[in-house]
Amino acid sequence: MVAEIICVGTELLMGNTVNTNAAYMGRRLADLGISLYYQTVVGDNVERLADTVKTALKRSDIIITSGGLGPTEDDLTKETVVEAMGSELIEDVHTRRRIEEFFSRFKGIRNVTVNNWKQAMIPKDGFAIDNDNGTAPGIVVEKDGKRAILLPGPPHEMKAMFEKDVVPYLEKLSTDKLYSKMIKIAGVGESNVETEILDLIDNQTNPTIAPYAKMGEVHLRITAKAASREEGDALIEPMADEIRKRFGRNIYTEDESVNLEDVIVELLTKEHLSIATAESCTGGLIAGRLINVAGASNCLNESYVTYSNEAKERLVGVSHDTLAAHGAVSEETAMEMAAGAAKAAGADVGISSTGIAGPGGGTPEKPVGLVYLGVSYKGQTYVRRLQLRGNRENNRNHTVEFALIFLRDVLLGNV
Amino acid sequence: MVAEIICVGTELLMGNTVNTNAAYMGRRLADLGISLYYQTVVGDNVERLADTVKTALKRSDIIITSGGLGPTEDDLTKETVVEAMGSELIEDVHTRRRIEEFFSRFKGIRNVTVNNWKQAMIPKDGFAIDNDNGTAPGIVVEKDGKRAILLPGPPHEMKAMFEKDVVPYLEKLSTDKLYSKMIKIAGVGESNVETEILDLIDNQTNPTIAPYAKMGEVHLRITAKAASREEGDALIEPMADEIRKRFGRNIYTEDESVNLEDVIVELLTKEHLSIATAESCTGGLIAGRLINVAGASNCLNESYVTYSNEAKERLVGVSHDTLAAHGAVSEETAMEMAAGAAKAAGADVGISSTGIAGPGGGTPEKPVGLVYLGVSYKGQTYVRRLQLRGNRENNRNHTVEFALIFLRDVLLGNV
Repeated sequence: MVAEIICVGTELLMGNTVNTNAAYMGRRLADLGISLYYQTVVGDNVERLADTVKTALKRSDIIITSGGLGPTEDDLTKETVVEAMGSELIEDVHTRRRIEEFFSRFKGIRNVTVNNWKQAMIPKDGFAIDNDNGTAPGIVVEKDGKRAILLPGPPHEMKAMFEKDVVPYLEKLSTDKLYSKMIKIAGVGESNVETEILDLIDNQTNPTIAPYAKMGEVHLRITAKAASREEGDALIEPMADEIRKRFGRNIYTEDESVNLEDVIVELLTKEHLSIATAESCTGGLIAGRLINVAGASNCLNESYVTYSNEAKERLVGVSHDTLAAHGAVSEETAMEMAAGAAKAAGADVGISSTGIAGPGGGTPEKPVGLVYLGVSYKGQTYVRRLQLRGNRENNRNHTVEFALIFLRDVLLGNV
Repeated sequence: MVAEIICVGTELLMGNTVNTNAAYMGRRLADLGISLYYQTVVGDNVERLADTVKTALKRSDIIITSGGLGPTEDDLTKETVVEAMGSELIEDVHTRRRIEEFFSRFKGIRNVTVNNWKQAMIPKDGFAIDNDNGTAPGIVVEKDGKRAILLPGPPHEMKAMFEKDVVPYLEKLSTDKLYSKMIKIAGVGESNVETEILDLIDNQTNPTIAPYAKMGEVHLRITAKAASREEGDALIEPMADEIRKRFGRNIYTEDESVNLEDVIVELLTKEHLSIATAESCTGGLIAGRLINVAGASNCLNESYVTYSNEAKERLVGVSHDTLAAHGAVSEETAMEMAAGAAKAAGADVGISSTGIAGPGGGTPEKPVGLVYLGVSYKGQTYVRRLQLRGNRENNRNHTVEFALIFLRDVLLGNV
């Protein structure tokens, strides 16, 4: 089964919006084992959209569109696709009622316009997909062995409908179902992960492994074709076990929705530990990332941005002699900052960053990108040295990621 | 003149990489006044790439590709396009020398492989574009009135070549040249900006105005077709003046490369002012954004993440009574945090955030998304209330942006 993606919208063509919808749909189709050979972006222009749809219908079994389902006169995806497939539109009572309900929630604020009723028209050879986050329903058209799935453009509407209705619809089309498991690895470089699993990838048939690289992390998705969840798990588990054996504690979660900061806040909370940061080159971004977790208030009460030397001394008690002898960007300063942060906040754990983010400030001995991270825990202080090679923003974001990885290693005794 | 973009790479099709190249090229073509009707993504497959190129050559004057110029056997963009256009490849001595030079920089680390020499082959009907950041040169093919511009996939290589060589090449193709000016507006909503300039957009011919929305900001690009820079400026200036009149101090820069935090650090530095933050719901992200500016050490020495009530009292001196009477998320607490941050750090300016980022913690009186920002400056403390409607991450990022806008307003006496 071959699918094709068509994204409709002049704002995509003109680059005002980056096409994250295509990337998302491409990834999900790959997860489902459906081949995808083309993605096209076309503006809000009937003729060119019709051409694109006709070409796609010739070479693919399923076309999936996003955008152009709104109420305005510019929104013509439904009309164009339905005509290209030789079907026609009729009013759908269920969808009309959903639109009425949607607007009743905004009584006095937003009113149904005449144009909104156009959204209640559904092709004779198809059905609507309910949109819980907007007025434009999705549409499925099935005609002459070809299928079109039309989804709205706003990513949060499109994704919710894709997960809830499109994935089950596509799964039903293939006789074998696909089951998958995500394993997230931190602290091992992308190329090292790939080298480590080269034999598994070379020999893969069912299940398959797909690596996704993310700054400082690699996520592996194991996907099995099977007739049932049990059979799928039976295929996935031996492969998952092999990966667990190879990456051990570098695996921080097997839950798709969990991030590194979630795991750290969970570790701290479980052990009733509190944490404080003393940040120089990251300027508050480590604390900012931890506080991204809704339960962070259980373990983080306060933190310090200690950008100047004087702040390092006064707020977290780095000694004047240490700064004079080794400089602000040094192992010694990073360690005193981490221990000092914990002490000043009365916290169990302290974490620090000090480095040269660039573009200026580098020397031959201490080049741009040199960063020291400190973690203080149970009376011990640990330090890690990084040599990064990006621009200022990139170096700071990498430092935050590596700080969280380091922190997790210390909490797990993995140092 | 009509252009078309083709991005080559299985990682784009599968969604492992979001297609930022297409967005960037679409935006730059729009700036240059070149029409763009289609963007296509196709995998590393000769047949499908050849089909895509042939279709594009039929309907467009210029095709611009990115990706598939590397040294591996998968990289086939050049060979495929050159064949589709009926040209052929010959070795280019200049490019061969550049590849030798590139590798000499990595002596002992990276070696030239036989495959790299393939990158020195250039079409008979075209020329190479030097790549200062990698080995794959860009290629221009000109044949039978059609043009193809082939660029490498890595964004930093592609963009550098696009700006340095492709923009001048495209400018030369149009008899009139395009000149543009960027005006960045903060603190006015997207739809309000659009309403304010509707008459200008409706009546635009030369120059034109294009708005780009960014969280909390709208950037307006004014573009004029003219025979010279002077003539261009003469067309742009009256329009720029009209926009200046309408948005006044909400315009924070007319320099494309300058961000809001740059402007704030510049304002503070010029007035020899220092700043400190006391952050609750943003957890260090305001300080983190300011420190993104390379010169931030001139005005920021230290800052505080005061997440718990106790930290608000101890670190920045919020009174126990205020917290008891009004709660942590209140005008009163925000004001005391801002004033307290300045006092504790011995800084001239203090800025604070306190709010309910969600998803939990909301009440009917203080719903999720309620945020108070405080700014203390010259003995006065100002407060601003936000009611945001996103998820936790979104709310926190918006809070940081609105805090910077508020801070700029206070520094300019715009309150």
